[in-house]
Parts: sequence; C-alpha cells; structure tokens
Amino acid sequence: MADAPLSYESAGVDYDALDAFKRACQRAAATTVPMLAGHGVREAEGTRGESAYLIETPDGYLAHVEEGLGTKNLVADAMQELTGRSFYHHIGIDTVATIVNDLVTVGCLPMSVAMHAAVGDSLWFAEEQRAADLAEGFAEGCRRAGAVWGGGETPALSGLVERNAIVLAGSAMGRMSKEDRIRGDVEAGDAIVFLASTGVQTNGLTLCRRIAERLPEGYLTSMSDGRAFGEALLDPSALYADFIAACRSAGVRLKYAVHVTGHGWRKLMRLDQPLTYRITEIRPPHEVFSFIQTRGPVDQREMYATFNMGVGFTAYVAAEDADQAVQAARIAGHEAWVAGEVVDGEKAVEIPSLGIRFAADELQVR
Amino acid sequence: MADAPLSYESAGVDYDALDAFKRACQRAAATTVPMLAGHGVREAEGTRGESAYLIETPDGYLAHVEEGLGTKNLVADAMQELTGRSFYHHIGIDTVATIVNDLVTVGCLPMSVAMHAAVGDSLWFAEEQRAADLAEGFAEGCRRAGAVWGGGETPALSGLVERNAIVLAGSAMGRMSKEDRIRGDVEAGDAIVFLASTGVQTNGLTLCRRIAERLPEGYLTSMSDGRAFGEALLDPSALYADFIAACRSAGVRLKYAVHVTGHGWRKLMRLDQPLTYRITEIRPPHEVFSFIQTRGPVDQREMYATFNMGVGFTAYVAAEDADQAVQAARIAGHEAWVAGEVVDGEKAVEIPSLGIRFAADELQVR
Repeated sequence: MADAPLSYESAGVDYDALDAFKRACQRAAATTVPMLAGHGVREAEGTRGESAYLIETPDGYLAHVEEGLGTKNLVADAMQELTGRSFYHHIGIDTVATIVNDLVTVGCLPMSVAMHAAVGDSLWFAEEQRAADLAEGFAEGCRRAGAVWGGGETPALSGLVERNAIVLAGSAMGRMSKEDRIRGDVEAGDAIVFLASTGVQTNGLTLCRRIAERLPEGYLTSMSDGRAFGEALLDPSALYADFIAACRSAGVRLKYAVHVTGHGWRKLMRLDQPLTYRITEIRPPHEVFSFIQTRGPVDQREMYATFNMGVGFTAYVAAEDADQAVQAARIAGHEAWVAGEVVDGEKAVEIPSLGIRFAADELQVR
Repeated sequence: MADAPLSYESAGVDYDALDAFKRACQRAAATTVPMLAGHGVREAEGTRGESAYLIETPDGYLAHVEEGLGTKNLVADAMQELTGRSFYHHIGIDTVATIVNDLVTVGCLPMSVAMHAAVGDSLWFAEEQRAADLAEGFAEGCRRAGAVWGGGETPALSGLVERNAIVLAGSAMGRMSKEDRIRGDVEAGDAIVFLASTGVQTNGLTLCRRIAERLPEGYLTSMSDGRAFGEALLDPSALYADFIAACRSAGVRLKYAVHVTGHGWRKLMRLDQPLTYRITEIRPPHEVFSFIQTRGPVDQREMYATFNMGVGFTAYVAAEDADQAVQAARIAGHEAWVAGEVVDGEKAVEIPSLGIRFAADELQVR
C-alpha cells in the first residue's frame, strides 16, 4: 500500500491553536506599550508583526528578538545514535542563525546573542564532545553573525523537557540608526532578490522526521548524490547578517527582507500591502528537497508552502538596485539572483512556471 | 519508616555537569568578544559572570539577559488537575520576574521583555483560560517591571518538550547611563539590605515537588496557616525593578545587588572579593519554608543553601546609605531591613544566630 502524501498539518503542528495564542499575546502585549514612555523612548511605528521588535530612541532604534531552533536537533540525536558522530557544532550554528536571520530582516545587525539551552536531565552535558560541539558551534554562529555571545541560561528541567533532549533557543539585540531601518515600503515594480539557503535550514523538520520514520533505512537512506538524508538535513544554516552589512557598505537600500522559514514561500507575502509577488526565475533546489518530495511523498505545492526550496532569505529592492543587491550578496558569499518582481494585484505569491499561486488567506503570521 | 532527609542534589539536579558546560560556553563566548569592535562598542569590564551581560557604548551601557522559569509551572499543572483552577496568571508574572530580577542586579531597568513559550503539543494553547492567563500574567509582569512586552516565540516541539508541558523562558534588554551601573565595589563596613520575597518565588521547586510526592495529600496538604502547600508555592514572585528605580530617584548608590534564587543564601557571596557577609538580623520566613523544612524533612542549613528563606533580593550599600535604601524599598512596596554587614575575612556567608557558615567553595556561579 502506498503511503498517503504528507503535509505539514498532518505532521502534527496545529497552527490554529498556536495562532490564537499569538493573538492573545499581541493583545496583552499592547497594554504594556505605555511603559516605554518611562524610558524616554517609544514603540517604532509598524513594528508589531515584524520578525524583530523595534524601539525608537531619540537617535535610532533598539532591536530585540527571541527565537528557537525548533526540532532540528532531534535529527542530530538520531544521526548520532546511528553514526556515533555529534552534529551539535552545526546545531549550535543553526540556533544562532534562526535568531539572527529574524533580527536582520528589520535592518539591524546583531550586537549580542544569548543562548537558552534547557535539558531534561543535566547528564545531557556530561557527554563532553557533544556539549563542546554545541558551545563551539554557538560561538561560530555568533562570529559569523558579527555578534558577541552575551551569556545565556542552561537549566535542567526534568518533567518539562524529554529525558534525553535539549531545547535550544535564544535572543539577540542590536541597535541601528534611523536610516538603516528596513521599512517595508515595497511597491509594484520592485525587484525580488533571492539568496540561497544551504538546505532545509531550520524549518519543516517535523515533516522530515516523519519521512525518515517511513523509510526502511531512515536517515541513512542515500540520496541520489550519495549523501545520507540525515546528513543533508543537518547542513548548517546560512547567516545573512553579512548580506545586510554588505548592502549598507554598498549603499543599497533594502525596502523589505524576509527570512524564509516556516510557511516556506508563502512568507514572501509577509507584508500587509495588496501586492502580488511574481517569481519567474526558479533555480533547482538542493537534492534534499527532491528527496523529500519524492519519498514523502509531498505534493509540489506543499513543498513550496512548507520549505525554503533553496531560498533562505529574500530582499525587496527598487528595480534599479537589483543588480547591486545581488552583488552585495555575492560579496558576502551568498549565491543570489533576481528572482521576480512585485506587481499590482491581490496579495498573493505566484510561481507561474509551476502553476502555483498562494492567496493571502494562506498566510497568517502577523 | 521515616523518610530520608532531602537535599537539592538528591532531588536530581547535577550542578557539576551543568557547571562544566557553562565553563565551556564561557571559553567559547570569549572568542566572540572582538566582534563588538565592528559595532563601535566594547564588552563592559567585569561583566562576565554577572547576572546580565553589559556592553559599553560611548554614552552608557546596553544590557541583555536570557533566563528561564525552571520547573515551577509543573506545580501549576498539578494544582490545576487537583482544583480545576489555572494558576498561569501567576506563572506569567513569575516568568517575567525571573528574567527581570536578574537584569536589574547590574543597575539597568528593563526596556523590553520577550517570551519564549515552547510546548510539547500545540493543543496546550487550545485550553483557552490557561492560555489567556499566561498571556495576561506575562503582560502584568512586564507592567510591574516597567517594560514593554516586545514579542517572542511559541513553538510546538513534539519529541523535545513533554506532551502536556510548556517550557517558559525569555529575555530582556535595556540601557543605562554610566553612573547607573552597579559595579560590585563592596568593602568591609558596608551594609547588607534584605528585600522580602513573596515565598519560594522561582527556585527550589524540584525539591518541593519531591516533597509533595511524599505527602499523602500532596499539594493539597494544609499548612499551619490553613493554606494548601501547592497554593503557597504558586504565590507569584516579587519584581524588584521598582526598587532600583526608587534608589535612582532617591540618589541611593547601590554597590552590589543579588537576586536570591538558586543556591539560596550562598548567593550572598556572589562577588569574587575576599569578604565575609555576616547576617545578624533574620526575620521569620513565610510559613511555606517551615512546612518544607518539617515535611521534607530538610536540614536547616540545606534550607538556607537552597531557598531564598523570605529574602528575594539583596542590596549592598555604604553604611550611611542603609536607611535610605530601606526607605526606597518601602516606597516601592517591598518589606526591607538592614540585615547585616560586610566584614573583613575569608569569602563566606555567616549566620551566627543559626550557627551556619557557607564557605567560598560552596558556591560556583561565576
């Protein structure tokens, strides 16, 4: 009997209950905004719903973000059991990447990153290689982000965290001048620039784990390029802070930026404006995506609705700045290309060559 | 057969493995410090090992802290099962308190607080009253801290977080002028000022849960004041940001401040200096501490080595400022008193009236 196709919802993540709580949090958080007056600052206009929180000071902005790795390290745990190798250096980088790539979407470079590493049992840390890999990977992520590792917390939470597990998360802060803020002033005619990802990065892992469970050889299944599925899943994420820095140096003004994670390419319509994001230049994604699509099986539309499909970060720029933005990305070491255009129309993401269109109601992240 | 006395180590927290990882993190973090130069700032001298991380800017400091609630909400879960009542409003306040009370020890008032709430199953959020209580309690904590609730993250982490559990943590940031920094320049002759806690606040809960398991009526056991043990454990923590603000207003210079949490009164010797902290004015702690001590049973020395024993925050001031510091605490609504004195001698905490002395090697938190 053939396996039923997998989707992210069928893999057990109920976004409705989560989103309802997020809205309750937003309502409650709104009651705290007046507290900023006591500090001589105010909430930056339009910051709620963006990927990092901005406070406007007399001379610029302070940015603050809290983020988590998700379940990617469960893949590392499974691979360590199968191969004896610790992948926690990569996991440390990933943890920083997931925090910092959110922060930089508002235009702010991270100054400080803090780690939250909660274990079910303090013996997690007794396995020295894995613990050292995590610490060194986190530091490597910070260096790539251009940030200091400014402390953190490592609690043992028996009864809350699973016995052999670690929950990885953290926060970042930074500041920037007024003119460095990315403001979301996208309009028809703007170019959409894609920056390559390194693979699945940090999203869609719940679905990937479900696929591995169904495969006779699980994570050790060879993909057509000869690598094991589990190893490819653990390629560390790219960090895009250097791209933002390169744009500043080159004087390229970014109108908007999106960290392509949960909700895949649906995230490209993250802004509220009624605009259509038309993607015309698709590049073949990494082998791991074809593998997931075939072996899931996962419908192509669902793939683009869930995974980054080879695109980790997206920048929106005036058409005349597009080539310079691509150049800045390359200087920072990222493959990049002009992938499409913003056009007038209903809020939607269109990929005409694949016959895919995501409508506004398919994304609720604000 | 009488139960064996309980200690925090016997309750399953292995501080050795945790502390080894913390040291590995500190070594790795040190490699990232040069990144600050790119931002035109530097690491504040002496900040490593303090409860919040400080970055020195040309005109002041930026502060950043990441903290977690620990296992206190497992008590709320158990009490909800027993009574049908959600205690998550208190838990929300506690989560903010544990973050902010660390931040303010360096003299910085929190500007923004972010929440990290990771569940084992997104259905956790489907129980509406509990979810609403958490959101509103977190906002209440932020208001009491004088901070804005600046976003956060609410992942569903099946396989990492226990099925019916939520892991609560978060971060805070703030900034302050150079003269507001609390610098740790404590010397012999200084006064030690205690600020009352509201109960166990957020530490020692693992041990409390172990005690409840041993009691025939568990959390519903009546204490001598008629309240249920579990209810008393869930009294929300005090927030001490208002005390720091009141000291600023009154011009009281704090030389050092300690958030009395893990390691109980051993934390009073948090500084490196070879000084003895002699506590001569003890006030009877809340009923819940007597209950824990008797019903554990927990040895008195272990009680003071683990719990806050009625003291949630400690300030060290010049002797001539002691009364004013007490006054500032009272203005902020905290019971406070001059509890002792810093004297020359080996690094130690002494409570002569109880015959307790904690030596330097009994605290490793830096």
